[in-house]
This record gives sequence, C-alpha cells and structure tokens, in this order.
Amino acid sequence: MEETFVPFRGIKNDVQGRLLCYKQDWTGGLRAGLRILAPTTYIFFASAIPVISFGEQLERSTDGVLTAVQTLASTALCGIIHSVFGGQPLLILGVAEPTVIMYTFLFNFAKDRPELGSKLFLAWTGWVCVWTAILLFLLAVLGACSIINRFTRLTGELFGLLIAMLFMQQAIKGLVEEFCLPERENPSFTEFQPPWRFANGMFALVLSFGLLLTALRSRKARSWKYGSGSLQGFIADYGVPLMVLVWTAISFAPAGNIPKGIPRRLFSPNPWSPGAYENWTVIKDMVKVPVLYIIGAFIPATMIAVLYYFDHSVASQLAQQKEFNLRKPSSFHYDLLLLGFLTILCGLLGIPPSNGVIPQSPMHTKSLATLKHQLLRNRLVSTARKCMGQHASLGQVYGSMQEAYQQMQTPLIYQAPSALGLKDLKDSTIQMASSMGHMDAPVDGTVFDVEKEIDDLLPVEVKEQRLSNLLQAAMVGGCVAAMPLLKKIPTSVLWGYFAFMAIESLPGNQFWERILLLFTAPSRRYKVLEEYHATFVETVPFKTIVVFTLFQTAYLLVCFGITWVPLAGVLFPLMIMLLVPVRQYILPKFFKVAHLQDLDAAEYEEAPAVSFHLSPEGRMSRATSFADDGEVLDCMITRSRGEIRRTCSSKATSSCATPSREFKGVQSPRIYSPRISELRGDQSPQLGGRSPSSPRTRPSNLGKTG
Amino acid sequence: MEETFVPFRGIKNDVQGRLLCYKQDWTGGLRAGLRILAPTTYIFFASAIPVISFGEQLERSTDGVLTAVQTLASTALCGIIHSVFGGQPLLILGVAEPTVIMYTFLFNFAKDRPELGSKLFLAWTGWVCVWTAILLFLLAVLGACSIINRFTRLTGELFGLLIAMLFMQQAIKGLVEEFCLPERENPSFTEFQPPWRFANGMFALVLSFGLLLTALRSRKARSWKYGSGSLQGFIADYGVPLMVLVWTAISFAPAGNIPKGIPRRLFSPNPWSPGAYENWTVIKDMVKVPVLYIIGAFIPATMIAVLYYFDHSVASQLAQQKEFNLRKPSSFHYDLLLLGFLTILCGLLGIPPSNGVIPQSPMHTKSLATLKHQLLRNRLVSTARKCMGQHASLGQVYGSMQEAYQQMQTPLIYQAPSALGLKDLKDSTIQMASSMGHMDAPVDGTVFDVEKEIDDLLPVEVKEQRLSNLLQAAMVGGCVAAMPLLKKIPTSVLWGYFAFMAIESLPGNQFWERILLLFTAPSRRYKVLEEYHATFVETVPFKTIVVFTLFQTAYLLVCFGITWVPLAGVLFPLMIMLLVPVRQYILPKFFKVAHLQDLDAAEYEEAPAVSFHLSPEGRMSRATSFADDGEVLDCMITRSRGEIRRTCSSKATSSCATPSREFKGVQSPRIYSPRISELRGDQSPQLGGRSPSSPRTRPSNLGKTG
Repeated sequence: MEETFVPFRGIKNDVQGRLLCYKQDWTGGLRAGLRILAPTTYIFFASAIPVISFGEQLERSTDGVLTAVQTLASTALCGIIHSVFGGQPLLILGVAEPTVIMYTFLFNFAKDRPELGSKLFLAWTGWVCVWTAILLFLLAVLGACSIINRFTRLTGELFGLLIAMLFMQQAIKGLVEEFCLPERENPSFTEFQPPWRFANGMFALVLSFGLLLTALRSRKARSWKYGSGSLQGFIADYGVPLMVLVWTAISFAPAGNIPKGIPRRLFSPNPWSPGAYENWTVIKDMVKVPVLYIIGAFIPATMIAVLYYFDHSVASQLAQQKEFNLRKPSSFHYDLLLLGFLTILCGLLGIPPSNGVIPQSPMHTKSLATLKHQLLRNRLVSTARKCMGQHASLGQVYGSMQEAYQQMQTPLIYQAPSALGLKDLKDSTIQMASSMGHMDAPVDGTVFDVEKEIDDLLPVEVKEQRLSNLLQAAMVGGCVAAMPLLKKIPTSVLWGYFAFMAIESLPGNQFWERILLLFTAPSRRYKVLEEYHATFVETVPFKTIVVFTLFQTAYLLVCFGITWVPLAGVLFPLMIMLLVPVRQYILPKFFKVAHLQDLDAAEYEEAPAVSFHLSPEGRMSRATSFADDGEVLDCMITRSRGEIRRTCSSKATSSCATPSREFKGVQSPRIYSPRISELRGDQSPQLGGRSPSSPRTRPSNLGKTG
Repeated sequence: MEETFVPFRGIKNDVQGRLLCYKQDWTGGLRAGLRILAPTTYIFFASAIPVISFGEQLERSTDGVLTAVQTLASTALCGIIHSVFGGQPLLILGVAEPTVIMYTFLFNFAKDRPELGSKLFLAWTGWVCVWTAILLFLLAVLGACSIINRFTRLTGELFGLLIAMLFMQQAIKGLVEEFCLPERENPSFTEFQPPWRFANGMFALVLSFGLLLTALRSRKARSWKYGSGSLQGFIADYGVPLMVLVWTAISFAPAGNIPKGIPRRLFSPNPWSPGAYENWTVIKDMVKVPVLYIIGAFIPATMIAVLYYFDHSVASQLAQQKEFNLRKPSSFHYDLLLLGFLTILCGLLGIPPSNGVIPQSPMHTKSLATLKHQLLRNRLVSTARKCMGQHASLGQVYGSMQEAYQQMQTPLIYQAPSALGLKDLKDSTIQMASSMGHMDAPVDGTVFDVEKEIDDLLPVEVKEQRLSNLLQAAMVGGCVAAMPLLKKIPTSVLWGYFAFMAIESLPGNQFWERILLLFTAPSRRYKVLEEYHATFVETVPFKTIVVFTLFQTAYLLVCFGITWVPLAGVLFPLMIMLLVPVRQYILPKFFKVAHLQDLDAAEYEEAPAVSFHLSPEGRMSRATSFADDGEVLDCMITRSRGEIRRTCSSKATSSCATPSREFKGVQSPRIYSPRISELRGDQSPQLGGRSPSSPRTRPSNLGKTG
C-alpha cells in the first residue's frame, strides 16, 4: 500500500478493490454450506463472552445505566452493518475494554455535574460520539491508515501480547473476586457468609480451570489418537462452546442444600422487562445538553478517536497477516470511515460503540483457514477418488486434482494467469507418487491414503467471505433475547474462558516465542527454529536476540503498567504508537539494521524454491511429510507463522546432514511451501507470500519499515 | 526356569544365583553415589503414601487397634530385612490392600467372640500369621513358584490393570468422601457444617487434581523445551515428592477465617504418645488364645497364603520383565521362603504383614533403569570428551566408549565373553559418525553433540542393587517418627497421588494399549505399532484383537466386581490364577494358536539384526535418531515395552517405502536394539532379550505358556 495522503484516494482504492470481490464474498460463504457454522460459533463465543463480561463491568461502574444488553446490542448492530457494508469482512467488531474504561471515566465526570447528571450522561456521550466520528472521518479521508505499514511486527505483536495480558489479568482478578464479597450485594445473604464464600471460590477454581484445560484440549482434537476423524473434527470445531455448556451443566450438579447463589452467575437485566429500553431514545435528549459541554465533548473524543484508529487498524492488520496468504484486498481507509458512521449511530442510540477487536479478529481468520483447508481437502479427495475409480494413472489423478484446485481458487482478476510450472509439478508429483506407491505394501494393513496426501499438498488458505461475520453478529444479537438463558452461565466459566482466549492468542506471536526462547536450554534452541520457522535464530547472534527481547519485554511491562493508571490508562495505545518512531529512529542506533530486519521481519526475500525432483533429499522429506494427518491442520492453523526466508536454500544444502531436523519440520509450511507454489503453478514459486508479479496494492502487513 | 518340584531345589538355585552377585549388589549401589536418591525418594513416596492411607483405613475398621504407625512399621521392617536378606532386591514390600481387607474381616470375627474380643485380636492374628508362614514355607520348599512361568502376559497385565482400577477407585472414593461427614467425627464441629463440608470437598478437588496434573507433568520434565537440562532432570527425578510438598503448602494458603479442619488432613496417632506401643508385645498374649481358635486360624491362613503366594510372585515377576534386560538372576522360591519368616515376625509383633506390592515394584525397576541410563551416559560422555580432547579419530572415540561401556557392565560370570561383532560395530559406528559429521555444519549454531549421540546408543538397562530398596524402607521407618509432620498432608493430596499411581502404571501394559486401540480411528492404528511396538497389530486380524480384548476386559470386570463382594473379595487373586488354566486349555479352542502367541506374547523370536551399514535406509534412520535427547529417556523408561519380533526384518524391506513411520519410531528400542547388541558385541544381536547362549536359568517372565 502506498503512503498517500491525497484526500479520498485511500478510500477509493479500498472501495474499488472490495467491490470487485463483493459478490464472491457472499457466494463463497454460501457455498461452504453448513460447515460455515464451525468458525461462526467459535467466533460467536469469543465475541459474546467478553462483551457480556464487559457489560457487567460497565453496569457496576455506571450504576446500571449501561448493561450487558447495551454492549451486546452494540456489538451485534455494528457487526451486522460491518459484515454487510464493511470493507474487510475478516475484521470482528465488538465493545472493547478501552471503551468500557472510557465510558466509566465519562460517567464519573458527568454524574458530578449538576447540568448533566446521570440523566443526561447518555445524551452527552452522544455528543462525544459525534465528535469522535468527525475525527475518524477526517483520519479516513486524509489517508491516515497509510502509515499502518510502519506498524511493524514489533508493534503489532507487542499490542497482541498486551491484550493477552489484559485478558489474563481479568481472568485472575475475576477468580480472586469469587472469594470476596461482591459490591452492590446484600452481605447478609446466605451465599455471602464466609464458609459459602470460600466454597464459592473453590468451586470457581474448579469450574474455570476445568473449562480452560478442557477447552485447550478440545482445540487439539484433530491430533488425538482416539475416536473417529469426524468426531475429532466436531470436537475441534465446536469443543469450546461445548465445554462452556458442559461446565455450566456441571455447575448445576451440586444441588442439595447449596444456596442458589453458588456458584455466582451472570447478573444482567432481563431485556424483556419494562424499562430496559428507556435509554435507547437518547437522541431527543441531546439537544438538552448545555453548549459548553457539547464543545467540551471534543476533548474525550480526540482520545477515543486515536484509540479507535489504532485499535481498528491493528485488529484488521493482525487478521490479514502475510502468513494467511489472503487473496482479497485490504480496506483500512474505508473501514475507518465506516467506523465513524457506526460510532455516530451508537452514540445516538445511547449504546457504547464497537470497534475492531483483538484477539477475536485474528482468531476469526485462523478458524476460516481451517474451514478452507477442510473444503479443499474434501473436494480434492473426491476428485482423486473418482479418478482412481476410473483406473487413471497417477499423473492423471494429480492433473485432475490440480484442475479441481484451480477451480476452487477465488477467481479474482488480481491473480496473474499461470501456465508455466505445470510440467515441473507433474513430474515431481508423479515421482513423489511413485515413491508413495511403495507405501501401500501391506506393512501394517493401512492402505494408500489419498486423504493424507492431500493434507500435505494443501497450503494455508483462508475462506474469505462475509457470511461467518454476519452470522456471528446476528447470534450476538440473539444473545440479547437469550439473556435469561445466558444468565445460567457461572461467572467462573467466564474467567476460564478469558484465560483460554489469552492462551489461544499466543502461538504464532514471535515476540512470545522469543521470550520462551530465553528459557530454552541451549541444546534445544534449534527446535524453536523447527517449530516456529524463526530464521532469526539462525541469522542473529543469540545475545542480540536476548537484548532485543528484553527491550521489548520492558516496553510491554511499561505499557501494562500504564493501563493501571486511573485515567491515562486508556491511552496505552499511544505508548504503542510511540514504538513506530522508536523502531524507525532509535533502535537502529543500538542494533545492526540486518539484525533488526530479521527480528522485526518485514518483507521476506523470495528465493526460488528448490525443485524437489532434482534432490533426493527433497523427495525424501516429501515422502515423510505424509505422516500426520490431523495434526498437520492443527499445526498449520495454530502454530505456523513467521518468515520462511532462506530456509529453502539452507535445506538444500543441509537436509542430508540434518535429517532429524528435517523430519521434525514435517508439519510445517517450510516443506509445504514449495509444493504449494508448484501446485498453484506460479512461475517463481513464492514461499508463504503472494506473487510479486500480482498487481495487488494491499499493505504488506506488519512489514516494510523505514 | 525349569518346572521342578523337587524339594528345596528351587530355593538352592535362587540362593546360589543371588550369592554370586550379592557383593556387587552393594558395591554397585554405593558406586552410584547421591544419584541413588532419585529412585529412592520416588519409591519411598510411592510406598509410604498408600501404606499410610491403608493404615487410616485399618484404623477405622479395627476401632483404632491397628493404625498407620503399625502399617508403616511393618513396611519398614519387612523392607529392610528383604533388602538385606532377600533374593530379588527390585521387589518392594509393603502392607497391601488385600491384607487390610483380610485384617478387617479377622477383626470383625474376633470382636464378636467373647473368648477373643478385640483384646486378644492381635494375639489371634499372630496364630493366623504362624499358619500362613508354615504354608508359605511348604509352597517355597516344594517349588510352587516354578509354575510362575504359566502366568503369562495375559495374567500379569490383567492383575496390573486391576490394581490400577483399585487405586483409582480409592482415589474417587476418597474424593467423594471429602464432601461427606466423616465417620467417628463429631458432626457438630464447625468444619462439618454443610457449607464448610462443601467448601472442603471443592478444595479437595482443587488439591487432588492439582497434584495429579502437576505430578504427571513433572515426570515428563526431561522432554520439556524450557529450562536447563539439570533442572529438567531434577524435576523429573524429584518432581512427584516436590509436588506433594507444594500442594501441601498450598493447602495452608487460605488461612484467615477458615476452620482448622479444612482441608482434612491425615488422622493418625502420635507414635511418641504413651500407649502407642502397648499392642507391640503380642507374643505373651498368644498363649491365652483358646486352642480351638488356634486351630481355626488355619482357615484364614490358607486364604492369606494363597494371596501372598500370588501377589508376591507376580509383583516380583512384573519387576523383572524381559524388556528391562535384567542381568542378575531371579529368586522366586527363596523370596517366598523369606516372606514366610517375615509373616511370622509381623504376627508376633502384632503388626499386619507386608508382601510384594504392585505397582511399586515395577515402578522401582523403571526408576532404576533411568538411573542406569544417566550413569552410563555420564561415563560415556566424559570418555568421549576426553578422547576428543586428544584429537582422536572418531573410530578411536567409539572404541574407547565401547571399552568404558564394557567396564560399566555388571561383571557376572553368567555373561558370555563377547569378542565377535566388534569389527562390525566399529565399521558401522564410524560410518554413522562420518554421516554425523555433516551435522556440525553451522546450520543453526548448535555443535556436534556427544551427549545426544550417546543417549541414542544406550540400551535399556537397570541399575540392579540393594541400596535403593534399603534406603526407601529405612525412610518409611523414618515416617513413623515423622508422623507429626506427615499429618500435615491433606487427605485430598493422597487421593490425587493414588490417581497418579494408577495412571503411571498404565503405559507399557499391552492389555491397556489394546483397549485404547479399540477406540483408535482405523487410519491411526499404525501409530500404535510405532509407539508400543505391538507386532500383534501387524500379525493378528483386527477382529481377533477385538474379541480377545473384549474377553479380557469382561474377565477384568468380573474380577473387579468380586472385590466388591464383602468377604470373598479378598480372594480375587484366585480368579486371576484361574486364568492360567483358561489360557492353557480353553482359549486355544476359540483363537488360533499363532494369534494367541502374538497377543499373549511369550518368548520372542530372535531374528538377527540387519547390519545397518549395508542398507542406506538403516543409516538414515540411525542418523535421524539423534534428534531427541531427553524424550528418549522418558520414552524408553515409561513407554517401551512389548515385543520386537519381526519388526527388524519388516523394517529392512519397508523402510524405504515408509520413512515417515520409521522416523516416528525414532524414540524406540526397535531402532536402538540392533545398535545395543552391536555395542555389547554379542555374536547374534538380541532384540530386547538376553543372549540365548548365556547359561541363565531365570524364568522367562510373562512367557512360555503350554
């Protein structure tokens, strides 16, 4: 993406780009059929549960003016509008923690002014939203999102880790509170007597750790040894919501003489009760706000605007990371413009506005990558089976598989037509296939397995469409109606879920992986390279890695500390934005530029893949990659990010000497990648990136600094 | 072991065999230095915790006549005597659950007789012990242990799984009881009010699951990615006792206004209080027992004798399984004779007798295998380093390593001198080493690692000595003195530990692995073969495996059901002994003999190992086995049992076609084995067994059926 500040140019580019694929966004989603429900429910839970919890928090701090009903309504409304009219449908919108903190501050300010009071609070926040929207419009029009390129991996990953820390903090805080007397409750109730409070806390520990451990396990179901494939797939797809249900059911198990309030459950108003809607007609109160306060609303508005600009863009950026191999264009400018409209809308309705959220947005992309993999797999397997049924040669089988693969590709005009490389592919696949042929010798009774082969052939790709986003937002809306049911969920299950989300967002974060590297025994450091494809381990001296990571950790802790400062806390994104000049002007004085580029990997060198049929090692490593089936998917989706630069050539020279490392790396795109490119038929196969010849203009995420 | 019933012949053979290595039993143990403490503490906890818990159980059912002090005293006394005078020092003695059930029955019988009453109860049990001992002498002298050969894998593994089920049952029962009002307690105490009872139960859940999960994790510390090797080793060795300490400390965390009785802790008398020893002088009461009851004591004595004969022999057998590659002879007959003496001794002292226990005995052997591995490894590493420092050629390095290895071997006269095979070894190791030479190309900064190489060269071997057994028994004795400290352990930690022991005893049990196989997706069944080296997966039709496993499971459930029957329950070992004729006469009518032999694997075919330097595949798989270091140890010790038959030849033909499977199996003795034999320099390398040319006469455990 070029850094242009010509008014409207960014928005125009975004709209043009997205319009081209708008129809496919819907047809593609519909064609996925019922399978779309897996990522939908996954993201629905990830989206709804924090929003409900933030709503509870808001209720306590605004004396019940705003509740979970309002936060859910905002999330649903904004989500539906964004999924239909938004640019990047991978982006998930929701009411986020900073919004809650900001609204708490606004409420505390307003309730002490006789001119406003808690009666005109929502009307005043309406004006804050108007100002915020105006600022967002300006930022969008003037192309402020162009500089998103300068938010390198350093910035994005630090922000991601900070959010994970905040989620984990919330989980711990919530668990500790389970042992305490809740505010606003009658302490004379049976369930708040010391023994029952202690019992409640212990029960909360059981429920939240139960949820956390089982949810983490269920996500890895595909690599379980036991159970049929379809059961494993079902558990991996729906395990987390299922576990919320299971642990909620368990929370009802100890009936008997346990007081009703144990374990504590969600406390939210019934949206069906009269009066639940009385603050929804804020617009007619807005004229009653004194002019001085209308103008004064500009001050908090600037803070919110900066916050939203950063949050929204980084969430979008993290959902579109290079490693996902997205094929549709980005839409930073237009989405920011739309966010302005959404902010006004929410302000006028008297509900807190939503913006792009982390970690839900990258989680959404990851779950769609799983979906795409399944769809491609099913199609190719059936094609291959059909061909084999007709006694076709292996070459024919692979040919028809490739044809089917091409048909499944998003038919975008961006895609340069590919014709070359086909012969190469055919040769190498046949060679591979014939080496595979040995495999069906009845060694252990298993037969030549098409499915396994295809699993290994498939690259990381994402089912880019709008349906899952629309459906999840609609389901969040349904939560408002289902509030009486939701109130059955114990709060402790929520805390477990928060911890789950924090942990789920860690794999793939190279900053996190570098922190772990510091604790890894020297003799095992090479394993990091195998698992995370972190070339920096090879190219940067370990001491430099340590210093860089310690600097980043210190910076993270400072940011985390700032969130604890009562009011300034909400501006922690500014601290993170400060990293951009720090990275650009200060860090190069302490680190070699080459090392910085490796650690803060931006654009990746695109070395031509080694033709596998030329090197026996290549063939070998290829054959070995037919080992694991389900795990491949898990690893691809959850673990594989990071650059691939240079590994290709190093493999060519060292694969003979380091076979163990080679085979360890089997489940990695490092080995897939060349095959992927061959299958795609690109002229110069790209490793995990897009073809440089494609005239795409989307930003190279997390990259291109200085 | 021949099936001889000539009086005293078995005992004579045992004594002769063990006397030859008696001195080495001590010197070898002392030479291990402080490292011996790792298996010692591991087994000490595994031995003491159940004994304490059984003592608590006994206290409740004998109205406090017998307590944990007595069970600990018996375990310590018998353990010390057995470790010094016993035949097989791998066997761990302790008061076991059947003894507790039996004593409960005896007490209930005695207390209702006016002639006995609870006053003469111990005196009467003294007579029961005398009769039991006489029967055990007879069994030992007449060579009853000869038929131990007929207790096949089927019998031993079923018994092992049954014990695991009983442990798990105790864990669950204990946890449920944490929610209930304990017997014999004053229900008006604060901590027994419903809220505190519920709180106590929840706390117990947290503590026991905490212990279970962390203990299971800590055992795998060697394969952790993080932390230094020595820290990992420390955690793997001492993690379980450490976790007992940690969770006991955590149980004290919620001080405040929690009643003192929460969580519940061990309830045992203070051995320092007056009167704790008053029942230790039973011998002078024994003459007061009416003659009729002295004669009548013969009836329970027969039951106990049968029980001990079976328990003791099977525990010993499981501790000496073929897969451990033991080098010293067995001593079934003599140990049974000694058990007779121990039983009399305990009877006269008024304490319940001890016998060989499962799963502690096999756990002991496993932990000593880990120790031996570490010792061998350290020696070879230092030898290799020294040589490399002198710029020796790789051939010289391997030569000196082999010399050091030979020196470390137990110098038994059983061992046939080996001279052949040396050249083969040298050739192949040099070849391997030169292929390894490529590895220190600076791919990722790690250097050529001697330690890793050696890890892969080492076979499974056990540090056979008496010191660890003596020390653990002495430490159990110390527990009696430390009772006031032990009483700080929450009972819930005990239940967690019971579950841990049950789970720890499962890996390596082929019956358990076959049950899991039933739940494994067909496409992943070949993985079972990789991990457990279960050739039956290849050679027996799956349907036959299912039927056989279902039969075994049904039989197990019947045995388990019998343990619930009030009195007959104690005779469940008879049910298991019944399996011997069932296996020998009935099963062959339903299954093909070949299939039965594979499923109930007895003697293993000893196919000559493929010379690795002849096949490029061999070399390849060898090089790849240098991948994992710590894991190797874990896997070797905890997972690798089962036969190896035929895999060798199948590898030679199929390794090219199924490289993935090959590399998966890297951490297995399947690949080690040939190397082991080469290193040992045997003429015809044995796979996981002893040389057939060695004139050893110990029983082929779990093997050789009809």
